[in-house]
Amino acid sequence: MDNRLLLEYAKLIVKCGANVRPNQLVIIKSPIEVYEFTRLVVEEAYKVGAKKVIVDYIDSVNDRHDYLYESVDTLTEIEDYTVSRAKYEVDNQACHISLTSPNPLALAGVDPLKLQAYSKAKGEKLSFLTDYTMNSIGQWCVAGVASKAWANKVFPNQENNVDLLWEAILKASHVSEFDSVSSWMKHSDSILEHAKLLNSFNFKKLSFKNSKGTDLEVYLALENIFAGGDEYSAEGVRFSPNIPTEEVFGMPYKTKVNGIVYSTKPLNYQGSIIEDFYLRFKDGKVVEYNAKKGFASLKALIEFDDGSSYLGEVALISHNSPISNMNVLFYNTLFDENASCHLALGQAYSMNTKAGTKLSKEELIKRGCNFSNTHIDFMFGSKDMSVIGTTYKDEEIVIFKDGNFII
Amino acid sequence: MDNRLLLEYAKLIVKCGANVRPNQLVIIKSPIEVYEFTRLVVEEAYKVGAKKVIVDYIDSVNDRHDYLYESVDTLTEIEDYTVSRAKYEVDNQACHISLTSPNPLALAGVDPLKLQAYSKAKGEKLSFLTDYTMNSIGQWCVAGVASKAWANKVFPNQENNVDLLWEAILKASHVSEFDSVSSWMKHSDSILEHAKLLNSFNFKKLSFKNSKGTDLEVYLALENIFAGGDEYSAEGVRFSPNIPTEEVFGMPYKTKVNGIVYSTKPLNYQGSIIEDFYLRFKDGKVVEYNAKKGFASLKALIEFDDGSSYLGEVALISHNSPISNMNVLFYNTLFDENASCHLALGQAYSMNTKAGTKLSKEELIKRGCNFSNTHIDFMFGSKDMSVIGTTYKDEEIVIFKDGNFII
Repeated sequence: MDNRLLLEYAKLIVKCGANVRPNQLVIIKSPIEVYEFTRLVVEEAYKVGAKKVIVDYIDSVNDRHDYLYESVDTLTEIEDYTVSRAKYEVDNQACHISLTSPNPLALAGVDPLKLQAYSKAKGEKLSFLTDYTMNSIGQWCVAGVASKAWANKVFPNQENNVDLLWEAILKASHVSEFDSVSSWMKHSDSILEHAKLLNSFNFKKLSFKNSKGTDLEVYLALENIFAGGDEYSAEGVRFSPNIPTEEVFGMPYKTKVNGIVYSTKPLNYQGSIIEDFYLRFKDGKVVEYNAKKGFASLKALIEFDDGSSYLGEVALISHNSPISNMNVLFYNTLFDENASCHLALGQAYSMNTKAGTKLSKEELIKRGCNFSNTHIDFMFGSKDMSVIGTTYKDEEIVIFKDGNFII
Repeated sequence: MDNRLLLEYAKLIVKCGANVRPNQLVIIKSPIEVYEFTRLVVEEAYKVGAKKVIVDYIDSVNDRHDYLYESVDTLTEIEDYTVSRAKYEVDNQACHISLTSPNPLALAGVDPLKLQAYSKAKGEKLSFLTDYTMNSIGQWCVAGVASKAWANKVFPNQENNVDLLWEAILKASHVSEFDSVSSWMKHSDSILEHAKLLNSFNFKKLSFKNSKGTDLEVYLALENIFAGGDEYSAEGVRFSPNIPTEEVFGMPYKTKVNGIVYSTKPLNYQGSIIEDFYLRFKDGKVVEYNAKKGFASLKALIEFDDGSSYLGEVALISHNSPISNMNVLFYNTLFDENASCHLALGQAYSMNTKAGTKLSKEELIKRGCNFSNTHIDFMFGSKDMSVIGTTYKDEEIVIFKDGNFII
C-alpha cells in the first residue's frame, strides 16, 4: 500500500480519532502483526505533542497458548501491576487508541468458558477503566489495520488481498491523498446532523420488522439521545471513537424490549465466529436463543454477567450506506456494524441519555440504562427492514422503508 | 530456515537455557521483529509446564521515538506499575528469557545522555530485579534470534543474509537436527571442567599483553572463583545463562587494576557502535580513554554511575575457539564475547567469589567486588595475546600463549 496513504490514515487516527492533545499520555493497543503501521501512529502522536506514547502489543497466538495451557485460577488472577497500570492511565487522563486487525481464527478451539472467566475477572477488577472509556471521560478511538490473517478471511484466495483490504479500509475511512482530515470532519458533521434530526422527533419506541423474521419492539431509555459520529470527552475535546463510522445510536430501555431478532451478519466474538443466530426477548431479557454456528460462544456471551442478556445499544444505518455498498464482509464489527442496523448486548453508553455522564448509577438505572462488563454489537439490518418510531405523543413515524432511512 | 531446527533451538533455550521448572512464571523479552520465533519459545515453555508465560515485546523504533520526543523528566519517571510488575516477577520467582536481535542502528542519533538518564533512573528503581538476575536467584538466559536488520549488519549485501545469520547462530549454539540438548550439555560440562582447572591454580593476578598495546594487570577478588557454562539458581536449578557461551570468567579486584587495554572488536552500547577504543586504569578506575568512533557513547558508559568506571568481570577465551573460528563479527556482545578475551565495566557477579551470593554488600566490597547498575562487556583478545597468572604462592604460570589457552 502507498506509504503516503498510510501516513494520511495514521494522521487521521491521531488528529480526528483520538484527537491527541499536547502533553497527553497516549495508550495504543496493537496486534503484533501490524507493528509497522503502529509505528507511524506513534510518531504522529508525538508530532502533535503527546507527552508519552505507550504501545501494548497483543500477540493473539501467544494469547491462545495462555488460554490453552494456563489453569483457570492463573488466568483469572488479575495482578496488582495490571490494576496499577490501569490506574496510571486514568489518573493521567490518557487517551486510548485501539488498532484492530482480527485474526478470525486466532482463538478457535479455546474453551469459551475459559475466555469468559478471564474477561469477567478482568472486567470486574478493571471496571474503573471501562467506565473511563465507555463514559468518554478521556478520548478514545478504534481503527482497523490490514494484516495477512484478516485479509485471508475477507478476500480468500486472492494473492494481493492485503492491498485489497487496505483499499477497503481506507475507502471506508474517507482517506485519500488529499486532505483526509477535513473530509472526515465533514462526514462526521453530517452524522451529527442526522442524530439531531432523529432527536427532534422525541421517539419513545422503535419497532423493527423484516422478512427474515425479525419482529422486535425496543422502547428507548427516558430522555434518550441519539448520538453518532464525534463525541466530546469530559474536558470537552471532540473525538471520533470509531473509524470508520456511519451509525446513529440510542439507548434501549433495559426492561422494555420484546420480540425476536435474527442476525444478518456473522459475529466475531472473542476469536470465534457466531453465525445465523436469533435472540428472543421478554421484558428486555434474552429468554431463548440459538445459532447455526458458534452456539457455545453465543451462550458464553449471553451468560457473561447479569447485564449481558439485556440490550445496551440500538443503532440505525441505512442498507444503502457507503460501507454497505462496498459489499465487503469484514468479519470485524467495527466495519460490519456500519453496513447494518445493529444492537448491542451489555453495557449502555451513559451519554445516550440526557446529561447521562453526570448521573449516578441509580439515576441511570431509573432512566432504563443497562450495566454490564461487556458490550458486544451484532448486526440485524437487511434490505427490506422496516423501522417505525412511536413518539411520546403516540404518533407513528416511518423511519426506515425497504432497509433505508426515509427521514 | 528449517522449522525443525528453529524448534530444536526453542527447546534448547527453554530446557537448557532457562531450564523452566513446572509451575514456574516465565518472563520473555523479545524484539518485536522476531515474534514468530518467540511464539515457539512460549509454546515450549508451556509444554514443560510453565504456570504462565508473559512476553514483553520491545519495539526499538518506538523506543527511539520515546527518546527523541519525550522530555528527560518524563523519560526518567519510572511509574509505580513498572515497579509493581518487577516485584511480581521477583515475588513469584520468575525465570527470565531475553531474546536478542540487535538493530545496530536503532538508537543512532539519540542523545546518549538521555539514554543514560533513563537507564540510570530505571536501574535505581529496579535494582532489586537486577540483583535477582545478576545474583542468579532465579534462572535466566540470553539467546540470539536472527532478524533482517541484524543480518544486514553482519552480512551486508547478501540477499539470503537472514538464513546465513541463522546458520551462524545455530552453529554457535550447537543446534542440529539431532539431540541438541545433550550436545549442549556436553559442551557446558566441558566449560565447567575448564573453570575447575583454572581454579585449582589459585591465581591472585592476571597480566595481559599483546602487540596492539594492551598491557594490563588485573588482580582478582579475594576467594575468586572462575565460573563458566552453567550456573545454579538459589533453589539449585542448573541453567545456561548465555547461549552460546565459550567463556570462563572471574571477578577483578575493584581497586587493583592498572595499565592500558585496547579494544579488538566494536562494542554495541545502547544502539551505538563504539570502535577502536582504549581505557587506561589506575587503582581500578578508568582515568583516561578515547575512541575513534562513538566517543560520546563510551563517555556515557564510563560516567554512567560510580561503578561503571571500574571492572566487574574478566573473561578468558582462546582466540582459536569455535565461535572465533567462524570468523563472523556479530556486532552483538552475546556472540562476540565468545570469540575473544573480554572485560566488563560495572557490576560484578557475586558468584565469582566463594559463597558470594550469600554475602552482604559490605562483605562483598571487602572481597574487592564492584557495584553498579550496569554491566557492559568489551572485547580485547587477539591472536598474539599473552596471559600470565600469578598465584598466591607468587608462582608465574603462562595461561595464554599466542592468543590461546595452554593450560
